[in-house]
Amino acid sequence: MTWTRKDLLDLQSLSAEEISTILDTARVFKDIGARPRKVMPALRGKTVVNLFVEPSTRTRISFELAALRLAADVINFTAEASSLRKGETLKDTARNLEALNADFIVIRHSAAGAPHFLSRVLKAHVINAGDGAHEHPTQGLLDVFTMLEEKKRIAGLRVTILGDILYSRVARSNIWALLKLGAHVTLCGPPTLVPHTFEDLGCRVTHDLETAIKDADVINLLRIQHERQRKTMFPGLGEYTSLFGINRARLKAAPPDVLIMHPGPINRGVEVDSEVADGSQSVILKQVTNGLAVRMAILYLVNGGKLPQELIETDAGRTSDAVNSQQATATAE
Amino acid sequence: MTWTRKDLLDLQSLSAEEISTILDTARVFKDIGARPRKVMPALRGKTVVNLFVEPSTRTRISFELAALRLAADVINFTAEASSLRKGETLKDTARNLEALNADFIVIRHSAAGAPHFLSRVLKAHVINAGDGAHEHPTQGLLDVFTMLEEKKRIAGLRVTILGDILYSRVARSNIWALLKLGAHVTLCGPPTLVPHTFEDLGCRVTHDLETAIKDADVINLLRIQHERQRKTMFPGLGEYTSLFGINRARLKAAPPDVLIMHPGPINRGVEVDSEVADGSQSVILKQVTNGLAVRMAILYLVNGGKLPQELIETDAGRTSDAVNSQQATATAE
Amino acid sequence: MTWTRKDLLDLQSLSAEEISTILDTARVFKDIGARPRKVMPALRGKTVVNLFVEPSTRTRISFELAALRLAADVINFTAEASSLRKGETLKDTARNLEALNADFIVIRHSAAGAPHFLSRVLKAHVINAGDGAHEHPTQGLLDVFTMLEEKKRIAGLRVTILGDILYSRVARSNIWALLKLGAHVTLCGPPTLVPHTFEDLGCRVTHDLETAIKDADVINLLRIQHERQRKTMFPGLGEYTSLFGINRARLKAAPPDVLIMHPGPINRGVEVDSEVADGSQSVILKQVTNGLAVRMAILYLVNGGKLPQELIETDAGRTSDAVNSQQATATAE
Repeated sequence: MTWTRKDLLDLQSLSAEEISTILDTARVFKDIGARPRKVMPALRGKTVVNLFVEPSTRTRISFELAALRLAADVINFTAEASSLRKGETLKDTARNLEALNADFIVIRHSAAGAPHFLSRVLKAHVINAGDGAHEHPTQGLLDVFTMLEEKKRIAGLRVTILGDILYSRVARSNIWALLKLGAHVTLCGPPTLVPHTFEDLGCRVTHDLETAIKDADVINLLRIQHERQRKTMFPGLGEYTSLFGINRARLKAAPPDVLIMHPGPINRGVEVDSEVADGSQSVILKQVTNGLAVRMAILYLVNGGKLPQELIETDAGRTSDAVNSQQATATAE
Repeated sequence: MTWTRKDLLDLQSLSAEEISTILDTARVFKDIGARPRKVMPALRGKTVVNLFVEPSTRTRISFELAALRLAADVINFTAEASSLRKGETLKDTARNLEALNADFIVIRHSAAGAPHFLSRVLKAHVINAGDGAHEHPTQGLLDVFTMLEEKKRIAGLRVTILGDILYSRVARSNIWALLKLGAHVTLCGPPTLVPHTFEDLGCRVTHDLETAIKDADVINLLRIQHERQRKTMFPGLGEYTSLFGINRARLKAAPPDVLIMHPGPINRGVEVDSEVADGSQSVILKQVTNGLAVRMAILYLVNGGKLPQELIETDAGRTSDAVNSQQATATAE
Repeated sequence: MTWTRKDLLDLQSLSAEEISTILDTARVFKDIGARPRKVMPALRGKTVVNLFVEPSTRTRISFELAALRLAADVINFTAEASSLRKGETLKDTARNLEALNADFIVIRHSAAGAPHFLSRVLKAHVINAGDGAHEHPTQGLLDVFTMLEEKKRIAGLRVTILGDILYSRVARSNIWALLKLGAHVTLCGPPTLVPHTFEDLGCRVTHDLETAIKDADVINLLRIQHERQRKTMFPGLGEYTSLFGINRARLKAAPPDVLIMHPGPINRGVEVDSEVADGSQSVILKQVTNGLAVRMAILYLVNGGKLPQELIETDAGRTSDAVNSQQATATAE
């Protein structure tokens, strides 16, 4: 139950124990967030800069609220109207923010590896809020947190990720976290977007939807990003929906208690029908709520915060136990 | 002296008593705002989201400051660079904000009824900051608050609203509040923009400026919105000014103590001359100041806040009395 | 050791004593900023509006953080999506912000004199964050603060300012502060951009780089602003760099302990090489850090704040002495 890293850059390099520490800490923050007075001033006097070079409202707001709940000062820095547009390098921009006493840099960037680069040149804590097609670790963590909350275990859980796996940072972060915690991961989508190379990581790959979902405990639907799709690799939207779009009828092939997840924003009628997105199996909005708790946990941990053991045992002991005991099971399998 | 609504959507559906409750509460907040230390932490730990799908700096800033004065966390969400532009529906955007624990959604939207729609799908408090040509209730309230502060009564007051009535949400909110509190409302402007149908509501309609202002206690000038005018219905700017623009000479037709109001931003030299806008009868900047108090009152009331009776009796008892006694008079007339 | 002005508009009109007061106060705030808990709630309940009509991220963030450190509420108002774009005048915008109880207006504007204009029409404190090619007083102050911190004196110091002097507000504010405090100022750059008229102020003008830097204690490099350069007056970028760009080789002509300064953002490879910008003589990032302290000092002083004499004597007595004693020396020279 320890955290020693300055930054949160990806999930690939984290140990299962580190991921469990984040999940347990997030559990405590979620419980605090349910109280009427939601502020916990662990970061009072600290400055969090949201350095969003690629636009994103919902992730930025989630980080902003997480920081405000911890009583930090928050500065939003977007690429528009910034000195980055005057030709300044990312490194110079970041070092300037650090010189302004920024204690945390939350960065979203279209270039894979940008957060890792910053982490090497800055003393400030760097948190990856999505870098190119590489990773989106807080999304991966909130997804796993939600699965754990709903299904009470990760180890042994059957999770199907559906969509454009090849270009999805959400998929990558999910895969790393789920495999480390002992889940079974199935990837599904058009062959051009779900190559068999993912099998080397330990995932199952299939291009047939029914095969992919028939034993699934969880279906995590990725967003079809029209704006980013390489035209040569992606079938038309209509063709995608007819083959992989999830609706009530198609969902009959999955177990009745399968969990429907989606990182948002949803393209209703494309990757998922409204009936399913708003149905009783969907936890899409819970994911959003959990994102806040996960991001508070990250800010708190990289800052060197340590939750009192009593607090964790009382409030979140079961989740930690769920991961650990199930992992033991998974290892034993 | 009660408030039971979750939201503030419009003035049409409010009772005279509810409007008076807001005005009395705003009176107290204005008095608090005059003190050197202006924070009153009634909303500490709460989150207010300014969801401005239609751009507006001044109304957004007024709500932002009102929320900050009450110690809330404030998130600004504008349509630009948002997931709304990625094709997400307004409903999904709003439900996501609620899932992030937003307690208040202040919405400005070009579609009439957008706040009412959100109010039905959200548990969060919804406050209408202007919806299409429908209503702008906080503007209506701050206008009435200002009239009451300056003229000590609303019932029996003669208020002339001048300009593009047909497409003005400010006019509509003024009309509802003024009529409910017993004022006499005259509407004036070009015939295409001030149809006689408004007479059905209980307003007087005239297209002659002198008739409109000669007995007026208040002239509320609407902003000519070049950018929105339907070309076929609106005369040229020069023609509008020559017929309805208010200047020192033309104002001689009105009583000497007539109050000049305008929701801003002013088009100097179009609907009003600088001499009048900056003159001693103008309360345009007082309206801005009062907007802050009114918006604090709204946030406070929908949150379930109840001002201690003593506070209201001491600080603002007279305004409540002014409304009530004058209303009695108006009813008796 | 007094401050009586409502505003900070320029450095030209300040006395040496007033500048020293700011520097001494900034010294104290820098020391406070080095503590883990950096908030000093001198402006709690006050509102600071950043009115940036010309885009600037780094100066805006610096002011925003300075205000937050003093526990003020901060509102960012940018020209985009604002009522200024609807044709409202700057005066009306500013008076509206004041009517919203803005206590401080921090303004950046492309028109020289805009802050002075606002200062006359507003009761709020006005702080110039850069007006056209006129002045950028907080930049001038942070530059002088940094020189004093590094070189322990201003009087008698040899400072060379290099680049487009004619159109630089940074150069102007540096010149005023440095001359008032007794420094020797050399200006250097292409003849079209560094006219001999500056000699009337008391500066030395030269168009030869080696002459300019050979005795310099400090070289303050201005940013080449491609976007603003008048084509007829400015040589090509390559030509500029070949004549005035600072690199390791060229720097051998200067004393070994010369200080390299730059207001940022840097054009690496144009006005300065990376080797020099990131080298041991460079204090470019220290300037950024010092900007925060200087801006806190300004906000604090114009608000009527007076640092307790003990605090200044303990923490910053030496800097004040350094200015004063050196000035005496300078006068004696």
